[in-house]
Amino acid sequence: MNIEDLRKAHPEHWMKAAALRSLALDAVAAAKSGHTGMPLGMADVATVLYDKHMRFDPANPEWPDRDRFILSTGHGSMLLYGLLYLTGYKEMTLEEIKNFRQWDSRTAGHPETGHTEAVETTTGPLGQGLANSVGFAIAEEMLRARFGSKVVNHHTYVIAGDGCLMEGISHEAIALAGKQKLGHLVVFFDNNGITIDGKVSLSDITYQTARFEASGWHVQEIDGHDPEAIDAAITAAKADPRPSMINTRTHIALGTAVQDTAKGHGVVSDPEVIAATKKAYGWTAPAFEIPKDIKAQWEAMGSRGAQQRAEWQDQLDALSDRKKAEFERVMKGEAPKQLASKLRAFKKQAAEEGKSVATRKSSEMVLDVINRVMPETAGGSADLTGSNNTKAGDIEVFDPENRKGRYIYYGIREHGMAAAMNGMELHGGVRPYGGTFMCFTDYARPAMRLSALMNAPVVYVMTHDSIGLGEDGPTHQPVEHLAMLRATPNTAVFRPADTVETAEAWELALTHESRPSVLALSRQNLAPVRTEHKSKNLTAQGAYVLREAKEKRRAILMASGSEVEIAVKAAEMLEAEGIGTRVVSVPCMELFYEQDESYRRRVLPAGPVRVAIEAGVRQPWDRLLLGERGREAKSAFVGMDGFGASAPAEVLYEKFGITAEATVEKVKAML
Amino acid sequence: MNIEDLRKAHPEHWMKAAALRSLALDAVAAAKSGHTGMPLGMADVATVLYDKHMRFDPANPEWPDRDRFILSTGHGSMLLYGLLYLTGYKEMTLEEIKNFRQWDSRTAGHPETGHTEAVETTTGPLGQGLANSVGFAIAEEMLRARFGSKVVNHHTYVIAGDGCLMEGISHEAIALAGKQKLGHLVVFFDNNGITIDGKVSLSDITYQTARFEASGWHVQEIDGHDPEAIDAAITAAKADPRPSMINTRTHIALGTAVQDTAKGHGVVSDPEVIAATKKAYGWTAPAFEIPKDIKAQWEAMGSRGAQQRAEWQDQLDALSDRKKAEFERVMKGEAPKQLASKLRAFKKQAAEEGKSVATRKSSEMVLDVINRVMPETAGGSADLTGSNNTKAGDIEVFDPENRKGRYIYYGIREHGMAAAMNGMELHGGVRPYGGTFMCFTDYARPAMRLSALMNAPVVYVMTHDSIGLGEDGPTHQPVEHLAMLRATPNTAVFRPADTVETAEAWELALTHESRPSVLALSRQNLAPVRTEHKSKNLTAQGAYVLREAKEKRRAILMASGSEVEIAVKAAEMLEAEGIGTRVVSVPCMELFYEQDESYRRRVLPAGPVRVAIEAGVRQPWDRLLLGERGREAKSAFVGMDGFGASAPAEVLYEKFGITAEATVEKVKAML
Repeated sequence: MNIEDLRKAHPEHWMKAAALRSLALDAVAAAKSGHTGMPLGMADVATVLYDKHMRFDPANPEWPDRDRFILSTGHGSMLLYGLLYLTGYKEMTLEEIKNFRQWDSRTAGHPETGHTEAVETTTGPLGQGLANSVGFAIAEEMLRARFGSKVVNHHTYVIAGDGCLMEGISHEAIALAGKQKLGHLVVFFDNNGITIDGKVSLSDITYQTARFEASGWHVQEIDGHDPEAIDAAITAAKADPRPSMINTRTHIALGTAVQDTAKGHGVVSDPEVIAATKKAYGWTAPAFEIPKDIKAQWEAMGSRGAQQRAEWQDQLDALSDRKKAEFERVMKGEAPKQLASKLRAFKKQAAEEGKSVATRKSSEMVLDVINRVMPETAGGSADLTGSNNTKAGDIEVFDPENRKGRYIYYGIREHGMAAAMNGMELHGGVRPYGGTFMCFTDYARPAMRLSALMNAPVVYVMTHDSIGLGEDGPTHQPVEHLAMLRATPNTAVFRPADTVETAEAWELALTHESRPSVLALSRQNLAPVRTEHKSKNLTAQGAYVLREAKEKRRAILMASGSEVEIAVKAAEMLEAEGIGTRVVSVPCMELFYEQDESYRRRVLPAGPVRVAIEAGVRQPWDRLLLGERGREAKSAFVGMDGFGASAPAEVLYEKFGITAEATVEKVKAML
Repeated sequence: MNIEDLRKAHPEHWMKAAALRSLALDAVAAAKSGHTGMPLGMADVATVLYDKHMRFDPANPEWPDRDRFILSTGHGSMLLYGLLYLTGYKEMTLEEIKNFRQWDSRTAGHPETGHTEAVETTTGPLGQGLANSVGFAIAEEMLRARFGSKVVNHHTYVIAGDGCLMEGISHEAIALAGKQKLGHLVVFFDNNGITIDGKVSLSDITYQTARFEASGWHVQEIDGHDPEAIDAAITAAKADPRPSMINTRTHIALGTAVQDTAKGHGVVSDPEVIAATKKAYGWTAPAFEIPKDIKAQWEAMGSRGAQQRAEWQDQLDALSDRKKAEFERVMKGEAPKQLASKLRAFKKQAAEEGKSVATRKSSEMVLDVINRVMPETAGGSADLTGSNNTKAGDIEVFDPENRKGRYIYYGIREHGMAAAMNGMELHGGVRPYGGTFMCFTDYARPAMRLSALMNAPVVYVMTHDSIGLGEDGPTHQPVEHLAMLRATPNTAVFRPADTVETAEAWELALTHESRPSVLALSRQNLAPVRTEHKSKNLTAQGAYVLREAKEKRRAILMASGSEVEIAVKAAEMLEAEGIGTRVVSVPCMELFYEQDESYRRRVLPAGPVRVAIEAGVRQPWDRLLLGERGREAKSAFVGMDGFGASAPAEVLYEKFGITAEATVEKVKAML
C-alpha cells in the first residue's frame, strides 16, 4: 500500500480522512490505551459515508429520520468519536477527545449509548452492533409502514470486522436480515485479515462474501481505501432491495510501522512511529489540532443534514395532527393513556374469575389487551410461538410482504432476537418483546446484559421457568437462571404467581423507561392467589403480604411464581396446627429492595422463622432469608441445589421435595 | 412421498428402518410427550449409517476407537434410544423404552451422557451437539498424532437439524471445523423444511449447502430416504480430506397424517394415526415389539463391531508397554504422577520469591509447569492468547499441518470454543483448557452450563475478572459473572489471590474428575499474600484463615482474588487502631460449602462483625455474610452494585469505593 499514491489520487478526500486518523493516533497515544489500527484502516470508508451519504444533523442528534451509524467494532471507538467531533456534535469537544478512556469522559473505551450523545448503541462485545442493526432496520420498516416514507426513510450503516463475523451471533443476524429483506441495511466488512492472535487465517478460512450471499444478501467487494469505489458501492447498496454487505479490503493501522500486523490492532503510542505515520499522511498539524479548512469541510457535511432535517420537519408537520401526535408519542416511548385502565379492568375480571391457568397463558391474555391498545408493540419468539404464547391480539406477521405486521418469527435464534430487540428499542418508535424458554436465557445472555447496560426497556418473555417444564429434562429446566438475572444490574425480574400478578408485571415492564424486564412464566397451570381485586399494582412493591397469619405470627413463608400456591397451602397446614403463618409473595426482588426500609421491615419483621420456596437455587434468597440487618430470624430454603431431571412436572416437585409438606416440616424444625 | 415405493425399492432396509420408526411412535405415544417427527424422518439415514459404516461394539460402549454418533437434534432422542436398544446395548432394555421420559429411566427427554450408556454427549439445547462434534474430531486428530492411526482412527457422525443450523453456535463450529480440516467429521443435515413455528422459510432462507462450502467443507445433497444414496454419500464423505456435510432432504413425521408439517414435529399420539402410519409402513408387530429376524439384523451390526474391536485390541497390545500405558492413562483422564510434586515445587518457589504479578500471568507460569508434564493438555484462547496467557510450556499450534500441536487458535468464538472443549473432554484422552475475558463468559454460557450438567472437567481460564480491567469499560467489566457461575450447580469457581493460590487452583481443576472449573484471574498485578510455603493445598478447603487477628478478634474480613490484598491492608489498619481482625481468603466458595460444619464454624465463628470484599455483586456473599445458621453477626459488603466504567483500574477502585479505607469505615460503623 503506497500512501503517497493514495494521497495524490484523491487529495481532498485524503486530508479529511487523515483528520480522523490523526485524532485516533493522538487520543490512543495519550491514553496509552485503546485501538489505533481499526480507525486508521476504516477512515476512508467512514469519511466517504459521512461526506456523500449519511443523513445526520449534529444540532439534532435525536432527529428520528436520521441515518444510523453503528460501529460494531466498538474497540475502534476513536473512529466514532472523531466523526462526532469533526462534524460538530456539541458534546463531543476536543477536551473529551483528549480525555479518551478517562473517568467521567464522554469518550469511554467502547462507545456507550446514553453515556455519549449520538452513539446509537453500545458496542464492544463483538457481533452485537451488527445484530442490533437488524433491529434498527426492522424498526425503520415498521415505522415506515405506519407513518409513511415521507417521515420515515433512512438507512442503517454498520462497520463490522472479522471478530463480529466470527461470533455466532453474526450468523443469526445475517440470516434474519436476509430473510426479512432489510433493504435499508448496509454493512461494511472491515476485511483487514488481522485479529489479535495474528492473521485471520490462523483461525478462519471462511469466504465471507459467499456466506452473506447464501443468506440472501446483496454483496460487493471493493478496495476500502478507494473513495470512488466506496461511494459507488454505497450507491449500489442503497439501490438494491436486499440488505447489502460491502466487503472492503483494508489495511489495519494504515501507514504505521505495524500496518497489516496484529501489533497494529491495539495501542500505537511510540512518538516516533506516530510522527513517521503523520509524515507519511502529509499531516503537519500539532497533536489534536485540525486545520480550520479541514474542520470546515467536515462541518459542512453536518450542515447538509440540517437542511434535510428541516425538509423532513415540513413533512412531519404535513401529517394530520392525530398522526403526528401518535408519531411523537411512540418515538418518546410513552405508553398509551388507555393502557392502565384496560389492564385494571382485565385484573378485576381475572380476580373475579379466579381461573387456574399457566402464567404463560395469563401472559397471552394480558398481551391480547396490550396489543390492541398499543400499536407500537412488536412481538416475537425464537421458534416457540405456541409455547411462549407471544402471538396475541390479532397482530399480523412482519415479513417482506407485510411490513405492517408486528409479529416476528425470529427462528431458532435467541441471541439474534435479543440483540435485534435492543436495536428496535434503541431506534425508537416500537416496543419489542420476545419469547423463548427461560433456560435459553443462556443463549441470549450477552444481549440481555446489554439491554441492562443500555437502559433499554426490552421485555423478555421467558416461559417454562423451572422443573415445572417436566419431561424435557435438565437441559431445558432452568435452575440457576433466576439467580443470574437477579445478579445482573438494572434488570427487573418478574416471576408472577397468577394471572393478576402477570398483568401487573406486564404493566410495570411496559412503563419502565430505562431497564429491561424479564417475565419468568410457568408452563404448568397455577391456582389463582389474587382472587380479591385491588386496583393498586401490588407487584410494584416487589413483595407484599399476600396472606396474613391468623394465629400468633410465628412463621413467614416467602415464594415467587409457581411456588406461591405451595406457600399458601403450607400456611394453611401450619395454621391448622396453630402456627400463625404469613405468606409473602415476591414477584420482583429488585422492586422490593427499592422500597423504603420501613416497608421492607413491615413485610418481613424480625422474629418469626422464615422459609423461602422457589424451584431454583437459593443464592438470591439469602439476603431475604438471612435478614438484611443481621440477627433477624432463623431460616430455611425449599428449592433446588442441583440440576433437574426428565419426568412429569408433579413427579419432579415431589422427588425434589418442593412441596407444602416439606415446607411445613422445615418451619416446625425451627420453632 | 409414496411410502409404498420406498418399501418396495429396498424392502430389507425398509423394515430395519421401520423398526426404529415403530419404537419412536410407541414410546412417544406412551409418554404423551416427546418428538415423533425427527426419528421418523431420519430413520433411513441412521439405519444406513449403523448398517454399513458405524464402528461400534454394544458390549464395549467405552471402546476408545469406536465411531462417535452425536444426535445434535436431541429432541429426537427416541431415534438414539431405538438404535441402542436394537443393536443390543445392555442397559437400553425394552423396559427403558417403555418408560420414555419417566422418573429414573435411562430414556430421558433429551439424551444425557453419563446418565445413559453409550450416549456420547448431552444434547437438546440446539447446536451444541454439532459444536461438541468439532471437539470430538479435534481430540481424535490429536490422539492419532500421538498414538498412531492403528489405535486411533475413527469418525464422528452428527445429525443436525434446521434448529442447530440457525443457532449462532453452528457458525462458530462450522468455521472452526473448516479451518481445522477435520476430515473425520461427517454431518448429516436433516433438511425437512419444518420448525416448531411452521415452515423454515418463515424465518430463514439460508442455503445451507453454500454456507458450509464457504467455510471449506465438502458438501453433498441427497434424498434422505434413499438408502443407496445415503451409503454412497457416506463413503464419499469419508474419502474426502475435508469435513463433510450431507444435506439430506427428508420428510418430517414420514408416513403420518401430519407429515411435512409443524404438527409432525412434536407428539404424535392419536392411536388411529399411529395405526395408519404402521399400516403404511407394512409394520404389523404389536406396540414395542420387534420381530426376531429384524432384531437379529440389527444385532448383527453390533457383532461386526465386536470383531473390529478385537482387531483393534491386537493393535493396542502391539504398542510398546510404555506407550500402551500412556494411552490407557490419558483415556482414563488420570493426571500424571509427577504433577503434584512439580506443582508443590513451583508453589515453594513462588512463595519464596513473593513477586507481584497478575494472576493471569501466574496462571501462565503454572501452565508452563503443567504443560511440560501433562502431554494430554490441549490449550487455546478465543483470540486473546497474549491477554489470557494461555500459551505456555512451548506447546505448538494445532492445525492441519501439525496435528501434534496442542494449542488451538479458536478465533473470536467463545461459545464454539467452550462446546468444542466439551467434545474433547467427552471424547477422552485430552484435557482441554481455554481462555477468554471473564465478561465473555456470557457468550460461552450455554456450553459452560453443559460442562457442569455433563460432569465434564473442562477448565475455563477467564482473565480480566473485574473492573480491574480498566479502560475497556463496562462492556468488558464483569460484575455479575462470579454470581452467575457460583449459582450454577456442579461448577467450581476459583478466584485465586496470588501465584500460590493460582497453582493450587490449577491443581484442583486438573484433578477434579467430574466438574468444570473456572479460574477467574486478574488483569492487574497483585501483591503476594501467601509468602510462607505450605505443602498442603489450602485452596482445597475453599476458604481459610489467611491472617489471624493479633488484638482481640472483633472483625472478620473475607475476600477473593484481587481484593484479598485490600482485606490484608484493611486488617493492618484496623489492628493499628486496636481492633483485632482476621482475614479469610475465599478462593472457592463451592469447596468451602463442602467442608464439614465444624471447619466452617472455625473459619467463620459467630460474634465478630463481618465484611466481604469483592469487586462484583453482593449476591453470592450473602450466605457467608449473613450467617448460614442465622443470628450470627452484623455484616457489610464492599463491592459493586451496578455496572463499571471506562477509566484506569486504580481510579475505578477508588471511585467505586473498593478500598481498604472503605472497608475500615464499614467495620468501625458496626462495632
